[in-house]
Order: sequence, then structure tokens, then C-alpha cells
Amino acid sequence: MFDHLLNPRSIAIIGASSDEKKIGNVVVKNLIYFNYSGRIYPVNPKSEKIYGLKTYPSIEDINDEIDLAIITLSAPLVPDAVEACVKKNVKYVIVIAGGFSETGEKGAELEREILQKINGTNTRIIGPNTVGIYVPRSNVSTALTLPERTALPGDGKIAFISQSGALGLLTMDTISEYGTGISAFINLGNRIDLSENELLKYFENDEKTGSIVLYIENFKDGREFYKVAKETILKKPIVVLKSGRTSEGAKAASLHTGALSSNDAITDGVLRQAGIIRAYSETELMDYGKVLAYQRPLFGDRIAIITTAGGLGVITADYLVSENNGVGMKLANLSEETKKKIKENIVPFGSAENPIDLTADGSTEQYSRVLEILNYDQNVDGIIVYALFQTAKVDETLIDVLEKYMKGKPMVVGILGSKIGKRMILEAERRGIPAFPSMERTVKAIKVLYMRGKYLKGRNKYGK
Amino acid sequence: MFDHLLNPRSIAIIGASSDEKKIGNVVVKNLIYFNYSGRIYPVNPKSEKIYGLKTYPSIEDINDEIDLAIITLSAPLVPDAVEACVKKNVKYVIVIAGGFSETGEKGAELEREILQKINGTNTRIIGPNTVGIYVPRSNVSTALTLPERTALPGDGKIAFISQSGALGLLTMDTISEYGTGISAFINLGNRIDLSENELLKYFENDEKTGSIVLYIENFKDGREFYKVAKETILKKPIVVLKSGRTSEGAKAASLHTGALSSNDAITDGVLRQAGIIRAYSETELMDYGKVLAYQRPLFGDRIAIITTAGGLGVITADYLVSENNGVGMKLANLSEETKKKIKENIVPFGSAENPIDLTADGSTEQYSRVLEILNYDQNVDGIIVYALFQTAKVDETLIDVLEKYMKGKPMVVGILGSKIGKRMILEAERRGIPAFPSMERTVKAIKVLYMRGKYLKGRNKYGK
Repeated sequence: MFDHLLNPRSIAIIGASSDEKKIGNVVVKNLIYFNYSGRIYPVNPKSEKIYGLKTYPSIEDINDEIDLAIITLSAPLVPDAVEACVKKNVKYVIVIAGGFSETGEKGAELEREILQKINGTNTRIIGPNTVGIYVPRSNVSTALTLPERTALPGDGKIAFISQSGALGLLTMDTISEYGTGISAFINLGNRIDLSENELLKYFENDEKTGSIVLYIENFKDGREFYKVAKETILKKPIVVLKSGRTSEGAKAASLHTGALSSNDAITDGVLRQAGIIRAYSETELMDYGKVLAYQRPLFGDRIAIITTAGGLGVITADYLVSENNGVGMKLANLSEETKKKIKENIVPFGSAENPIDLTADGSTEQYSRVLEILNYDQNVDGIIVYALFQTAKVDETLIDVLEKYMKGKPMVVGILGSKIGKRMILEAERRGIPAFPSMERTVKAIKVLYMRGKYLKGRNKYGK
Repeated sequence: MFDHLLNPRSIAIIGASSDEKKIGNVVVKNLIYFNYSGRIYPVNPKSEKIYGLKTYPSIEDINDEIDLAIITLSAPLVPDAVEACVKKNVKYVIVIAGGFSETGEKGAELEREILQKINGTNTRIIGPNTVGIYVPRSNVSTALTLPERTALPGDGKIAFISQSGALGLLTMDTISEYGTGISAFINLGNRIDLSENELLKYFENDEKTGSIVLYIENFKDGREFYKVAKETILKKPIVVLKSGRTSEGAKAASLHTGALSSNDAITDGVLRQAGIIRAYSETELMDYGKVLAYQRPLFGDRIAIITTAGGLGVITADYLVSENNGVGMKLANLSEETKKKIKENIVPFGSAENPIDLTADGSTEQYSRVLEILNYDQNVDGIIVYALFQTAKVDETLIDVLEKYMKGKPMVVGILGSKIGKRMILEAERRGIPAFPSMERTVKAIKVLYMRGKYLKGRNKYGK
């Protein structure tokens, strides 16, 4: 149903402008910058051409079906513009301007007016007070970003729904560093019509989406969210960063988006019952979304660790098993046969005990053999591989080895370093291998696979 | 006393080789690659020249004082080489080879032989089984890194002591991404002679060093460490990543460096009593070292937050005050006068309540004014600034503003984004402003300043 929003064949910009300081200018410019390939219709009674595009005095003058209209006018002008969109039978309308309910009663009245205009029609509203959407697959961005300052991610598997626009944009800018992509980004804004609940349902069936992540300050309808999420979760993993969890945060949230505070212990219980993974920072939100999109769930918590640097094995073993400053999982007890076989394949002073240490003499070939051996050991549920490309006997084909074992037991990869390490994380990303640039992030990622597995098992669902 | 180790006027490489596959070749090559400007003396009875440098049949044939000798020979040949160094009155000897006590009794016997050779002499040993040292200030690297794969940090303020070589190199490679520098790196290896305790004393008085960070699997002499650290800590902050804290980790550590397990609750108590900050990952270790080197301690825990993105304020307020998934500090209650003044300086729909939200309309000028106002509010102990360069009214001179306020109340900066954000973190680093690329890392950093302040206050020491 949201195809016309995320993959619009035609976009009208109401309030398009040739004045570079106006929002209505930036929106048109960015559509062109991102190579949007559909039909663009600037609407402005005064201008003749904007960036070479013919403008229309009103949306009704456009002789085409309009999938998406972006209203760039200020708040008081929005209700009339929405009315015109309804007459034109526009499917989706993004209202960018602020100055609505977040600013007081007068703005709230404007929102009610808008809602009345669309009542009983086929027109749906995103926002107001939103940066809109960013969809790499269709090269649509309605956000007012300066491309020379902000990176936006490429096409990927994470659907990102955010109540806050800036938080969403900054987070996407940040994950671009390591090449993580998204299937779509939608900023809910004041959320007078379209909400997270309908989007969850949509992404549940969106083939491009492997996981759904949400930044939320309050739920539009908590009961409905629980009902929808509990179904969606059987097909797609969901991660939520719910802020306002402390009274200080809740107060800040009420000033930010007008979110009413809720009891966080209740929120926490509801999220857990629905099988939703909870994140506490933007890093966790996107890391968890990524690992869940790229890797199958883990149905047991016995983990094997492979490294060529002993220190990483020690620190990771601590972090894996510890309940404090750690994730409370188990270090797999390798079978005697496994240990014997590993011993035959690594250097004499390496360790065939878990964590398995190939030492600085470890080779790509040894990584491959040890992965093969571990995949046969029934005492091992999942694997953490530190793919360290800095030593002489490891080469870039280690990425091929990792790609091959993506078919094996659920595996998460840690890749350290800013030179070849950074380059290889980007390559892992291109191949859909979940790789992380620190030990803590790697271990937390495998924990999340286990949380999902445990939840699905509890509901007798073993598929993804 | 360690000047001749960290800033050697002359280096002899015993076992230097023209065979590119040999360690004795790579060490010479890397000294040249890193532009070491002292005198290099390759020692090898067979070769005539290595990379254009004259070689000497033995160290005794060199007609110069030798500050540092690097022995690249295999374990059985090391005792004789050390004996020659002692005769030559070499000040420091790095023994790179493994194959000593970490491999069994035969290797342990070799270590005892070496110790006998230096007993009562002025020659000191680093290692064996070590990658040696990396000192940007003097362009010395004895580590067998491949420069095309591994980045090493530039000159900076963090002294890094590591029991593990690979962990040290990988961590330095990783922090290079954001331009963090170090004052020196020393890999203790098997630590038969030189230990962390003497190095702590040295770095206490090293002008280049602002903080000392250690990766340790076991202390060489716990009592002595406590005694030394308790003194050093009054002048220089110390951060320790002590692994082997779980029984699983301890077992891995015993296989890695032969570290004997210790009761972690006792370790934890000792570290706390000595005022040492404990890290649990390589990221924390270096982040904490950085913030403590760049910023003064914090003597109260009431924090003000400035942001242009409301969502960041909400999430950070939660993380700041929460005891679970947070650091348990306080959000400062701004005085009425402060709030009034802030209100006069920001846009109408911004928030003058803490977290202070300048909104996407916030400007560099507004950041500056709000920082000025907060610096006068006695209810504020420290400040978190999210310096977000992505919006149109904020420009790069915000870095100058931040630099100016480094003289004010202790401040930690969060900078998100991979484009202008990344570039500005690198710039902040150049100016000694502690900036971090995620909210969690930013908040944890300010907590560490408070932990140090609280400790110093407890000992009635208020200076840095």
C-alpha cells in the first residue's frame, strides 16, 4: 500500500521556489541531486521555471496522477494546500513545516483542520513538522540536507522509522561511514495521520526490508503497536530506541515532540513481550538492525571465538560471559574431537581451546579450516570471528571465506583498524556480512541474534 | 630515565638481514619508513649493506654509544646477543622473539639465562615476546607492521602500555581513524625485566603524556602497582583494561600470556582505591585516556546539554541520569536567570530548559552565547555540547567557539556524521578538544571526568 509513497511515479512540490533560501527550492534541488527518475512537478503560481522544470500555478493544473505531494508552505497555508491535494486525489502528502501542535493550541487547531480535509478520502498525510522520507531505492529525498555536509546511506535492508527528523538524519549520516544501507527512512514528525503502526505492517511485507528499527519518544497507540508488532515480529525483527525512559528524558521529550511520559517499566515489559529488541543509543539501534537483517537468529548461546590476536580473545571471552559489563552468554565447550582437529590445523603455540587463537602466524586458510571444523561441532551455536587483515599471512580472500560461512552457523564478524580494516568492513557490508569495528559492538550484535532466537523459540517459530 | 628508550640517539638491530622475509629486515625497513632520524646500526656478520646502511659483524664493532638494541634473533640465540649488549653497555634491549616462558620450561630457562646476563648491569630488557615500542615523537617503531595495512597514530598525549602486542597495534590502528595520537606505546611482552610499574613512574613525569592507559592480563607485582599508581594518579590519570575478569577470560589469559588468574572483585577494589578508571573494552580504554588527557576533572555531576537536534537531548538526558544503561549523573537544574538569558538568545520554539535545544535554526553564534551563559551558572558543573555542523546556520567556526570554551567548565563534545562531522572530529582532535562520534561515548567520557574529580577531591587534591 505504501508503494506510491516509497516509489512514487510523480512528485508535486507545492510552494516550489526559485529563491535558493526557500525550502521549496531545496526540495526540488535535492530531488534532482539524488537523481530521482520519476516526474517532478513544481507548483507555484508566480514562477515560470525552476531548475529548468516547468512550474504549475496549482496542483489541479497538472495533467498527471500525483503519487506524492510535498507541501513546503508555512503552517497557516497548509490546510488549503491539503484541500487541493485531496481534490487532485493525491495519494500521499508530506507536510514539512513546523508551527503546529508542538507550538500550542493554535497549531493544534491547524492540525485538526488538515485532518478534516482528508477525512474519508484516499489522501494520507506524513507529518507535519517532518523532514519527510529518504528512500535510496527510488532516489527520493525530501529532507533539507546540504549534500556537501551530510552523507546519506545507500540502498540496504534496514527500514528506519523515526519520530525525530534530525536524529534520523544524523544517525544515517553516521552509519554511512561504514557503508551500512537502509531500505527506507520515514520521519513521522507530528504524526497526525500516518503512524509507526501502519508502517510496521507495510515493512513486514516489503521484500527489500530485512529488519525494522524505530526511534520513538512516545507511541501513537501503544495497544495497537503491541498488536501489530507481535505479528510483524514473526517475519521481521524489530528494534526500538524508546527515549524518555527517565523522568529527565521524559520531560525533555515532552518539550521536543510533545510526547507524554509513560512508565518505562511497562514499556519495557511490552517491548519484551512483543519480542522487540530494545536499544539505548543510536549505535545500538543501527547495529542491531544490521545484524538482524543480515544474519539468521541464534537458537543457543554457546559461542566460539576465532582470533589471530590473543588479547581480543581474552577481552571478548570476558565480555561474552559477564553479566556486568557484558552480555551474559556462554563460551562454547568445544568437543575433544574439535580441539584435536583444530590443533592439527594451527601453529603449535596457538590455542585450540575456545577462544581459538591462530596467533599472528594465522593464515586465511587456517581461518577457513577452523570455521569448517566449528560448523560441525554440536557444542557450538554461534561464532564470533575477528577477521584481522593486518598480518602477513592473512589476505583479502578472507572476506570470501566469511561470505561462504554466512551459510553456516550464525556468525558475527569483528574487524578492527582504520586502514585495511576499514576497507574490509566496507567490503563485508557490500556482501551482507555483519561486521563491526569494535569488540563490544561485535559481542552485543551476537547477543541480539540470540535474543531473537530465544523469542521465536518461545513462540515455536524457528524460521527467520 | 627512559629517555634513551623512547628517544634513542642510536639503534642497533641485532640479526638485521637483507632477506625481506626475515624480521631483521622488516625492523630496519620500518625504522627507515617512519623516518627515524637517529643513527641506525644493522648488525649481521654476513651482510655488507642493508637498505644502503653499513652493517657490523657484531655490536662491539660499532664505534658509538648504543641507546637501544633490537634483537631479532630466535629465542635460543638471544642470551648470547644480550651478553654482547651488556658488554657494549647498551641501555635498552628489545627482545622480539617468542618461544620463551609462554611455551614451557625450556623457554623459561632461556629467560632466566637472560636475566642472569643483565643482573647488576645497566642494561634493561623489554620483552621477550614483544612487538616492542612505537614512539611518534622520535619516529621509532620496532613493530612488524605492514604500513600499507596498518595505520599508526600520530604524536599525542596518551601513553599506552600493553601486555599484548597485537591488541595494542590493533587498538592504535583503530584510533587513527579519528586522529587520536599517543605519546608512546610500549608492549611489555613476557615482561622479565621492565614492567608497567617503572613505566608508570616514568610517564608520571613525562611532559608529553597527559594520561596513561594500560591493557593488562595480570599485574607483575600487584602490591607495587598499587603503591606506584596511587602516587602517579595525583599527577596523571590512569585507565586500565584488566582482562581475565571472568573465569573464562582468565583461562584464555593463561593460554595467551601465561597470566595467573586473580579474584576480580579484589582487582576492582584495588583499582578503585588507587583512583584508576576501569575500562571494559578497547574503545573505552582509549576514549577515557583521551578525555582525561584533554580535559580537566569535574568536581560535580550536574551536567548541561546543548544540542540543535532535540532527539539527541532526550536520549542523552536518559543516558546521563539512568543507572541502568546509563552513567547515573545529574541533569543540571538551570537557574531562572540562566533560562531567561538563554530564551533571549535562541529561537522561540527552542528549549531553554536543560537539555537546551537550539533547534535546526540554531547558529554558531547561539552556541557561543549559550556556552557563555552556562559558564556563569553555578548550578552547572560540566557541559555536553553536541556540535552538529549539518545545518545551514552552523559553520566551521563553531570549532573555534569550542576551543575558546575549553578554558571554561569541563566540556565534552559529541560530533555525529561521516562527512562534515568526521572532518570536524579530526579538527577537534588537532586542537585538543575531546570529541566523540556517538552519544554513548560522549556521555561515558564526561562520567570519567567526574570519577577522576571525585577521587581527587577524596584525597584533597584539586589540581589536575
